[in-house]
Amino acid sequence: MNLKRLARLAGLLGQAGVGNFLLTSANDIFYYTGFRPSSLSFLLLRPRPKLFVPALENEAERAGCEVAFIRKLGEVRSALKKHKRVGFDESNLGVQALRGLRGVRLKPCARFIKQPRAIKEPGEIERIKEACRVTKKLFRGLQVRGTEAQVRRKVLSGLLKARAGAAFSPIVAAGPNGYYIHHIPGERRVKAGDMVVVDAGAKVGGYCSDMSRTWCRRPGKRQRQVMGDVAEIQAEVADKVEAGARFEALQKEFERLMKKRGYKVWHGIGHGVGLNVHEPVSGELRPGMVLTVEPGVYIKNFGGCRIEDTVLVRRGKAKMLTR
Amino acid sequence: MNLKRLARLAGLLGQAGVGNFLLTSANDIFYYTGFRPSSLSFLLLRPRPKLFVPALENEAERAGCEVAFIRKLGEVRSALKKHKRVGFDESNLGVQALRGLRGVRLKPCARFIKQPRAIKEPGEIERIKEACRVTKKLFRGLQVRGTEAQVRRKVLSGLLKARAGAAFSPIVAAGPNGYYIHHIPGERRVKAGDMVVVDAGAKVGGYCSDMSRTWCRRPGKRQRQVMGDVAEIQAEVADKVEAGARFEALQKEFERLMKKRGYKVWHGIGHGVGLNVHEPVSGELRPGMVLTVEPGVYIKNFGGCRIEDTVLVRRGKAKMLTR
Repeated sequence: MNLKRLARLAGLLGQAGVGNFLLTSANDIFYYTGFRPSSLSFLLLRPRPKLFVPALENEAERAGCEVAFIRKLGEVRSALKKHKRVGFDESNLGVQALRGLRGVRLKPCARFIKQPRAIKEPGEIERIKEACRVTKKLFRGLQVRGTEAQVRRKVLSGLLKARAGAAFSPIVAAGPNGYYIHHIPGERRVKAGDMVVVDAGAKVGGYCSDMSRTWCRRPGKRQRQVMGDVAEIQAEVADKVEAGARFEALQKEFERLMKKRGYKVWHGIGHGVGLNVHEPVSGELRPGMVLTVEPGVYIKNFGGCRIEDTVLVRRGKAKMLTR
Repeated sequence: MNLKRLARLAGLLGQAGVGNFLLTSANDIFYYTGFRPSSLSFLLLRPRPKLFVPALENEAERAGCEVAFIRKLGEVRSALKKHKRVGFDESNLGVQALRGLRGVRLKPCARFIKQPRAIKEPGEIERIKEACRVTKKLFRGLQVRGTEAQVRRKVLSGLLKARAGAAFSPIVAAGPNGYYIHHIPGERRVKAGDMVVVDAGAKVGGYCSDMSRTWCRRPGKRQRQVMGDVAEIQAEVADKVEAGARFEALQKEFERLMKKRGYKVWHGIGHGVGLNVHEPVSGELRPGMVLTVEPGVYIKNFGGCRIEDTVLVRRGKAKMLTR
């Protein structure tokens, strides 16, 4: 149990207009209790933090808070019915579970529940930095040769050697496959003229990094143009990341720079990073936030280019953790 | 697109009492279209199969069916509103998405949507068999020494060398940690007298295997007793797996055998295996079903023992794929 974090969460009850919070995401439960469930579990905040877990999750005992072993959702429902208004995490709970909790006065409160996690504590930043160091080092030594699937395995094997986990299944997209933003690496062999997007991240102590680079052994004129443009856009937007800036302004600036050069905007400029590789980010950037800056250009039958760094917001200039 | 599978699914509409199905799980979408989304996407069955995906998922184009790129859930809602009653997968859809689809006449239909996947086709069985072979071989050569985390890394590295994925994050639980059924491997060093549960699975072509073994270098009397009992129970229940048997009868038999020997029953005897490592299984077993048989004994401050095989139901005797 992390009492400081739990107190911070309790401090949001009033603002959220509820008397209690019900947490269900594995990473939220881990953040507040140190216990990470691998099947549907619940953390109820009040009157004392209490975990509701299936018997399979008996390691919950080690979290140091009250634990109830449940066989049916009905047991959680009974416990919740005593509470007036319970804020829950609509971004995580499934419809089936919601149906099992029928009769409980539930209110969607994901934005309050996730709020404390947005600002990383020093210990969390250390882990993210380490995950970034691992990824950086791996990318530096990466031989982008053979098939996409082979390059992907090199990335996974590098992470394993560094004793890190994979933040997500690495993307390797060569030549025309680069057009497919979430391409699943396959048997295409990397050719000299291919732009090759590699998008990967490490996980250290539960915390993620996220980084993309685009390789090209023998770039033609168009490849040079695209790669140069993306690098410029990335640098320009990254330069604007600082405490006080608004995330929406970064997005707008990114779109302006893309359109100015005649490129279609396929996705957002970035996302928060922490225990989840994708965390919400919006509004004013504050010290301790971590986010990605990742412009990408995708051209059908030609290829893709994405350059992505994980960035730490601090007082003053932001720190690029994957450079 | 797999037209045969899509036709089979369409054949269940009447039984489900709906005019259309809306699929949302990545593995369901993969099963029917060959395309695997990595962010929230939708497959609508009628009048023609149509994918609704965010721009990030532009590889959906390769599935060979109609594709709509969506920015907001409202666009899916508009498309769905034309349909009378749409069966959806309540075991997968999140509350947030459900709220975005307000106004659509939705009916929970997971049991119909998942039904075709329960009986594996020959090509699917081949992949599961290969995933089982990889795991079997890995377990045979596994040196259960060092820390739990080191053993876990050996498993992951073995899977990578075999060019297989991990069906889930491997469990390695030594000594007293074995009591924790879903233990997260840590820094405990394996001791000679420790029972060590290793639970891991490979993924080949999207299909999983699932296998557990319990090691003990120098078993004491109690370790011998527990390991012998679990092995016996596992063999007895596995022997009853055959076409025509009911899954619930296996569960009952397992519980009887456990109680007869004075052990507490912590979890079910097994689960289905396929594209997901945990798939539903119930009722009459039929040829082509794949499930696990995995009794486990867990004793506080002492340890755990689990023996798990992936089993293929055929006409006649079932086939143990991980023996």
